[in-house]
Order: sequence, then structure tokens, then C-alpha cells
Amino acid sequence: MRTTTGWQADGTTTELRRTRLERRDLRPDDLAVRVDYCGVCHSDLHALGSHDPDAGRPLVPGHEFTGVVTGTGPAVTRFSAGDAVAVGNIVDSCGACPMCRAGQENFCHAFPTLTYGGTDRHDGSTTLGGYSREYVVHEAFAHPLPAALDPAAAAPLLCAGVTVWEPLHTLGVGPGTRVAVAGLGGLGHLAVKFAVALGADTSVISRSPGKADDARRLGAHGFLVSTDPDRMAAARDRFDVVIDTISAPHDLGPYLRLVAMDGTLSQVGHLGPVTVDTMDLLVGRKKLTSAGSAGLPATAAMLEFCAEHAVTADIELLPSARVNEALDRLRRNDVRYRFVLDMSDLT
Amino acid sequence: MRTTTGWQADGTTTELRRTRLERRDLRPDDLAVRVDYCGVCHSDLHALGSHDPDAGRPLVPGHEFTGVVTGTGPAVTRFSAGDAVAVGNIVDSCGACPMCRAGQENFCHAFPTLTYGGTDRHDGSTTLGGYSREYVVHEAFAHPLPAALDPAAAAPLLCAGVTVWEPLHTLGVGPGTRVAVAGLGGLGHLAVKFAVALGADTSVISRSPGKADDARRLGAHGFLVSTDPDRMAAARDRFDVVIDTISAPHDLGPYLRLVAMDGTLSQVGHLGPVTVDTMDLLVGRKKLTSAGSAGLPATAAMLEFCAEHAVTADIELLPSARVNEALDRLRRNDVRYRFVLDMSDLT
Repeated sequence: MRTTTGWQADGTTTELRRTRLERRDLRPDDLAVRVDYCGVCHSDLHALGSHDPDAGRPLVPGHEFTGVVTGTGPAVTRFSAGDAVAVGNIVDSCGACPMCRAGQENFCHAFPTLTYGGTDRHDGSTTLGGYSREYVVHEAFAHPLPAALDPAAAAPLLCAGVTVWEPLHTLGVGPGTRVAVAGLGGLGHLAVKFAVALGADTSVISRSPGKADDARRLGAHGFLVSTDPDRMAAARDRFDVVIDTISAPHDLGPYLRLVAMDGTLSQVGHLGPVTVDTMDLLVGRKKLTSAGSAGLPATAAMLEFCAEHAVTADIELLPSARVNEALDRLRRNDVRYRFVLDMSDLT
Repeated sequence: MRTTTGWQADGTTTELRRTRLERRDLRPDDLAVRVDYCGVCHSDLHALGSHDPDAGRPLVPGHEFTGVVTGTGPAVTRFSAGDAVAVGNIVDSCGACPMCRAGQENFCHAFPTLTYGGTDRHDGSTTLGGYSREYVVHEAFAHPLPAALDPAAAAPLLCAGVTVWEPLHTLGVGPGTRVAVAGLGGLGHLAVKFAVALGADTSVISRSPGKADDARRLGAHGFLVSTDPDRMAAARDRFDVVIDTISAPHDLGPYLRLVAMDGTLSQVGHLGPVTVDTMDLLVGRKKLTSAGSAGLPATAAMLEFCAEHAVTADIELLPSARVNEALDRLRRNDVRYRFVLDMSDLT
């Protein structure tokens, strides 16, 4: 076994504490990665909030990170020591089901192995995430990090980024598409950057009028205050695609009514049960869908797009020792727009 | 005013009673239509169940009927006395909003005038439906009934038919598309006929194994019992399009799991709030939509398709005097597959 250091859930609180962690010895297809930067995702809060310390499964969050290859198994073909890499929220899948064969490992019928809190397909161990100085990963689930991208600001692309890239790409967003992004947080600000870079006519919907300046700075062409019923009514049927990144449960009706005929609302911020009035879908033949992460080919395509269009996250970089402060502030939505932990303070 | 006879909600029960009704004198663009056949729709049950006799709005159901033109206003250009016509669930719209201009009068921003229980845009009167011997309608909202179609069996096409035609057509169903129709009732049996006629690989999903023979007789290639968890699990991700015609509230999860990657579930049977787990949409990038009736161009296209492919409803034809019996049996789903009232017993 290899050892490293990371931030693990304390058994008694939602605080993380610095701990020595074990990593597996490299299998033939494995990379050892020195984790340099790891984004702090809303999912990490959910995982901490629902963690049962008595279940015997250690929790080390973190599933969007960048770093450098420090070692390779003998069968590794795509990477060498010194290569910059990026890893997202899944690190293995069955490889045999129709979804895996279609490059949609995230939909693996046997369920993909999550980067943390998952179960390793070979040794049954619980996967420990990127809030740590080293990660060991099958090379197929690591991506070359383009040199044009700042590795700290690129880390959030691997989860927040690809989650909003996926519906924009799948729905064919491009020049002429009218896109609205509801909620301007970690996911939302990347959705705006992507939509703008794709050439779409892009608007932000937020309940905070104070975010109008940020929206414009991110490149958005329009801004709509969701608490203004007159402006919301005037925007009826206006957008071909609405990317709903709002993380709290909320009524989808007002956002569906902004969708144009034959358009789509993709709900990516809040996963779980939602109630929708079918009349809000029926009138205008609107579609509701969702997204979260992506398969390997789509993730690779996103990274290429980001390199070409200079898209990275707007981040606040903190030493990893301030992880609990980052989590507290994320709980209060006090971040513009993504915390990234600098792991160089770990050994 | 003109007078006719029809079946109106009794003030004290959900029974209908035979009543003299007034129809407006013909406006320049109006047709007088002798109603020959009117389908009995699930919506009629809903309207009767929620009817408030004290609200002062008489209720005469019926919004899928066929008949013959008996008189025309002076500005009518498309019809002459003696023409066979068909009328669906809307009889007017604003004509000016983007939806009306796009031929989607059913989505009129000023709300379309419903065939019954609506409010006439000119005189403010409550519209009275097709359970009557005569209807007066603006010629734009009447369709020529193709001579190839039996006028009794064609009546349900105007609501049940177009409601399932719309998603099949919009979603591009054709040869090679894998379609499942959930629920084999008035809507479902027409969805099967349409999907088969469009060349799709068509399956029926029903909780009644006894409907397998009917499904085959209607042309379906496959049959799936929804209460058999093994067969439902084996059919995961199998269908590009699922048309869900089940009229009672139900869990959409089992049906969404049958939808293939990037496929769509169109819920047409039960309108109102539905709860869906976004994970059932996320995994496989599935879409939820809905449909109900259609605009005038789509309705006309459906009638042409029906004439060309000999598609009409499987009906049980009853004299209109047996309307209460038909409604009672429809409440119990005791019909294969649509009641049609023969209005020739009215004067």
C-alpha cells in the first residue's frame, strides 16, 4: 500500500480533519497522481450531511481535481510521469454494458465507481476522493489536462463544468440558440461561459439583482430577476434552452414557462424528486430533462473546447487546510463561483 | 337564435338529461353542422365531476365529433352545405399571438376557446359541446372529413387521435423507431395504430395480460405486462419513445426506465402535477414531455394520414340516449376502445 495525506470526515461532526490515507499499489493500468488542485462541489456537502460514521465507510470528498502523474503501471499507454491530468467524478465502470460501450460510462448499467464513496470493482474498498495529496486511478478515467488551461481554475470543469456542458452540447446549443441559465453559482457561471463561447444568445435568471454585473462580466447578454413577475411574464416562451442550476428544491413552473415552443429545461442543480405540472410541458410541447457529469468522450471534448475558448472557472483558491471554511461558506452560497483547494500544504 | 337538442349536465347529479339548447345565429364565417357522431372522452368525465351547477355555466360535453354542414355564413369559403366535417376540442383562438400564427392555436397565449365549457370570444356565452344535434362553428376550426373515413369511427380521432398523433409526429416516429404505448384504452389503442402505420416497432405495456391479444390485433409487435418486474427490468432502455396514456396518477419511474438513451416519455393520459425523480431523467439523458390536442395544421395532417392508412378508432356505437350508460362504463374502463354517441335520436 501507498500512503498519503487527506481530509477525511470526522466521525462526530461534518468537519473534515487531516488524516493519513492509504492508496492502493499501482495495478498495471493505474496512474499515481499528485493532486494539486481539487474543487469543492455541492455534492461534497450532501455527502458530508448524509455520512454515517458508524457504517464503516470512510469519507474523503473531492471529485474534480487536477494534478501531475508521478507513477505509471506497466500497461499504461496514454500517460507518462510528469503529465498534467484531470479526474472527474467517476473512476471506473463495467466496460461491457451498452452504456459503457457507447462512451457513457456515467450511465453504466452496473453503476460506475464513484471517485469517492464508491466501491472499488477489484478489491471492494471504499474509494477516497481528491481532498488528498495523491490519487491512484485507472488511466482510462484520467484526462490529459490541456496546457492552455490553468490547473487550479480547470479543476471545477471536471464536475461542475461537464455537468452543464453535457446538456448544452446534447441540445445542440450554438449561434442563434436562446439560452437562459437559472442560478448563478458554481454550475451556473460555467454554463454562462460555455453558452457564450458556443455563440448562443445567453441570459442569466437570478433572484439577486446584484448579480447583473457579474452576469455581464461573464459574457451574458441578458439578465432577468426571477422575483419580478412582470419581467418573468414578459419573458414567456423566450428561451430555447433553460439550464436550471438552482440547488435548492423549487417550483419548476415559472422556469418552464420561459421555455419556447419545442424547447427544453434541463434541471442540473437539484437532483431528486421534482413535481411538475404536465400542463407546463403540454403547452408548447416543452421537454424536461436532467444532467450530471458525462461520459469519457464528452468530458474529453469539453476539455478541448475549454482550451480552445479559454474557459475555466472563476475560483477562490484556498490552502487545503481551510477546507472547513470553504465548506461553511459554500453552505451559505458565499463564493464566486467555486472554491478550489490547493493541496500543496499536504505531504 | 337557433335551437337544437342536446345532453346537458343535470344540476344535482353527474347524469346528463336531454334539453333544448340555443345555438347562435350564423356569423359570416360560421358553419351550422348537423352533429352525427360524438366521441365520449375521459375529459368529459372530469368536466362532469368538477361541474358546479351553481356557477351559472351550463355544461354540455363533447369535443370530438363529425357531421355534415347544413348552413354557411356569407363569408365562408372552405365549405358548402352537405360537406362532411369534423370538429375537435377547440373552436376559436386569438389568431394574433405567436402560437396562433405558428398554427398552434391549441397553445394560444390568450387561451383557445374550448368546444364546451369555454367562453365565446364575441358574445361571452358559454360554449356547449357536441353531445347535441347541432353545433355552430367558425369555419377555420372545422376540418373536411375525408370520404375514406367512417364518420362514426373517425369522431374520436379529433381528440384522442390527435393527442397521441402529436407526440408521435413531433418526435419523428417512423420505421426503426422503437415505440411503447403504456395503457391500452381510448388514447392507447389509437397510439398503437398510428405507431404501426408509421412503421415503428411497436409494443404495448399493460397491467392486464388479457390485452395481449388485442394488442396483437391492433398491430403491435410486442407486449409487456407492467406488473411483471422481471420483464420490466429486462426491457430497460429499450424504447426510443414511450407514450404514456395511463389515465390514473402513477409513478413514472418504471416507465422512464424503459426509455432508451436520449429517448422521450410523453405523458398524455393524466394531466396535472406529476412527481419525477430527476435521476430517472439524468441517467440516459431522457426527456419528459406531454401532449394534448394539437393545432389546426397538425390535425388536418393527421386526418389525411388516417385516410391514407385507414386508421380510425375501435368504437362501440350507442344511441345518444344511452349517454349516461356510456359515461358509467367509461368510469370503469369498460370499453374497447371508445364510445361514440349516435346523435340521430335527437331532433
